[in-house]
Amino acid sequence: MHHIILALDFGGTKLSAAVTALPTATMGEPLAWLAHRHVFSAPSSSAESDLQTIEAMGQALLNGVQLAAVGVSFGGPVDFPTGTVRLSHHVPGWKNVPLGARLADVFGAPVAVDNDANVAALGEHRYGAGRGAADMLYITVSTGVGGGWVLGGRPWRGHEGMAGEIGHIVVDWNGPLCLCGKRGCVERLASGPYMAQDAEALLQERTERGQVLRGLWSGERAKMSGKLLAEAAGQGDDVAFEILQRGGRALGVGIGNAANLVNPQLVVLGGGVTKSGEMWWSAVRQAARETMLPEVNCEIVPAALGDDAPLWGAVALAIELL
Amino acid sequence: MHHIILALDFGGTKLSAAVTALPTATMGEPLAWLAHRHVFSAPSSSAESDLQTIEAMGQALLNGVQLAAVGVSFGGPVDFPTGTVRLSHHVPGWKNVPLGARLADVFGAPVAVDNDANVAALGEHRYGAGRGAADMLYITVSTGVGGGWVLGGRPWRGHEGMAGEIGHIVVDWNGPLCLCGKRGCVERLASGPYMAQDAEALLQERTERGQVLRGLWSGERAKMSGKLLAEAAGQGDDVAFEILQRGGRALGVGIGNAANLVNPQLVVLGGGVTKSGEMWWSAVRQAARETMLPEVNCEIVPAALGDDAPLWGAVALAIELL
Repeated sequence: MHHIILALDFGGTKLSAAVTALPTATMGEPLAWLAHRHVFSAPSSSAESDLQTIEAMGQALLNGVQLAAVGVSFGGPVDFPTGTVRLSHHVPGWKNVPLGARLADVFGAPVAVDNDANVAALGEHRYGAGRGAADMLYITVSTGVGGGWVLGGRPWRGHEGMAGEIGHIVVDWNGPLCLCGKRGCVERLASGPYMAQDAEALLQERTERGQVLRGLWSGERAKMSGKLLAEAAGQGDDVAFEILQRGGRALGVGIGNAANLVNPQLVVLGGGVTKSGEMWWSAVRQAARETMLPEVNCEIVPAALGDDAPLWGAVALAIELL
Repeated sequence: MHHIILALDFGGTKLSAAVTALPTATMGEPLAWLAHRHVFSAPSSSAESDLQTIEAMGQALLNGVQLAAVGVSFGGPVDFPTGTVRLSHHVPGWKNVPLGARLADVFGAPVAVDNDANVAALGEHRYGAGRGAADMLYITVSTGVGGGWVLGGRPWRGHEGMAGEIGHIVVDWNGPLCLCGKRGCVERLASGPYMAQDAEALLQERTERGQVLRGLWSGERAKMSGKLLAEAAGQGDDVAFEILQRGGRALGVGIGNAANLVNPQLVVLGGGVTKSGEMWWSAVRQAARETMLPEVNCEIVPAALGDDAPLWGAVALAIELL
């Protein structure tokens, strides 16, 4: 006998749905996806059209099979106890939308909704790089820097569901201005777009520097990325090296701060910027080690689930309802 | 019927012991102290002589009455699961001392030992300013800056018992050098001795500044304190104002960082530096508010239990054994 679980992901660039089956006797590993489908949402889409799209995807996958539970990953702040989306970081029209209640109506099953970082943390904890670690912090380093906690083997969301916002802890209070209004946030120094912006500014300002990076870069802002910086740094580019080092160091100091405060045993790093190469990883790990007190120890490892982390996490979230 | 509880505090400047009685039926409020005694430990004392002193104090208070449990607050890192003291911050000879096992032998009752910040956090949570707050951070701002968590109504110690070390999170990575080897730690900017040191240095460096503070200060380093700085700042002294503002701001940024990471509903501040006056409190609260994301809310209040917080916390710790 199996529980059938529907996993939904309202991501920044796509909507995804998947169905899996879980043995009722052991509640053990989910089977491989029975079905898996994703669509790219148009940037002009609204909350209502995204909802209709994902509902149709879910119905098509299920084909009338009775569901045990639905888990949902959402790219924006969520009030977990009520399943209400407070806001989308990507799509207009998501403001105080009772997503959980609506999906429960549509699918006739209990629904749990949480923000993507918390859900990915749970996914990595149950099925990925965090297996066996009771206390872990998951961090995604991408267009933004966000995070989610598992403490004592359970998701830790905080009293308003806002825990894990490591992107907006300050490590350099005289540092550059962040969109959030503060200076020297981890996100301002370590996220992909901010590193790209700072690299571009440095190339403009110091025309004698960054010759390798200039050669590799097309000049289009969208093409400047952590990956390009890593490639240039690997070929000895000074600008790319400086920016990546500073980003890795900021993230590492943020991780060290988090480790001194909460003392998890493991930090799992996911997101595109983590593909910036060994030099970036060394900068992260060294700064974290220097920031942690001598008695504090915490391993830092890459995420294992890749782009499917939110879907696997949504499965883990749904299992909590059974 | 009552449970009799023995509370012990191995503090920085004194050893304290107290006995209280707890109604067995309700496990409610402890009665007022049945007996309460403290001695000042000589700076030359050893671990063994401190142990013998506090054991004799406990025996004298109990006078043969059967104990239900012993709770112990210790001023240094403790391995909570085994009750082993790793180190004292104040007295030589405390290195891997199995304090819990020894006291269990002496008193014939179960013993729980934890570091003073965790214990004070528990005390404020159960009997002080943190009553009713499921998720709180207690911070002591004194000769050092330390902290302890209560999350979901339970102490949160982390996987090595090191959680709560807010004094050694970095808020200004280009800031002044801390004894721990890092730059711009909260403790380096906000603790009493470091603020005093920085005020003194500023007076020496800028002879035209700090006239009010110069008038109030005797010139002895030991007499420079948060309280003196508050007094001078209250009378318009520019040096005192600058140092206290920066200390309060560093603590506030640290609190804001902790709130973004863990999202507690309450932060309770204890320790001598919290007596630095309204200007200091405003700086702390304003910096915390500016650092927290708009969706993150956290009240910051003074501790209620004063010098007895470790003893009340030790009672709460002992109750967990019943």
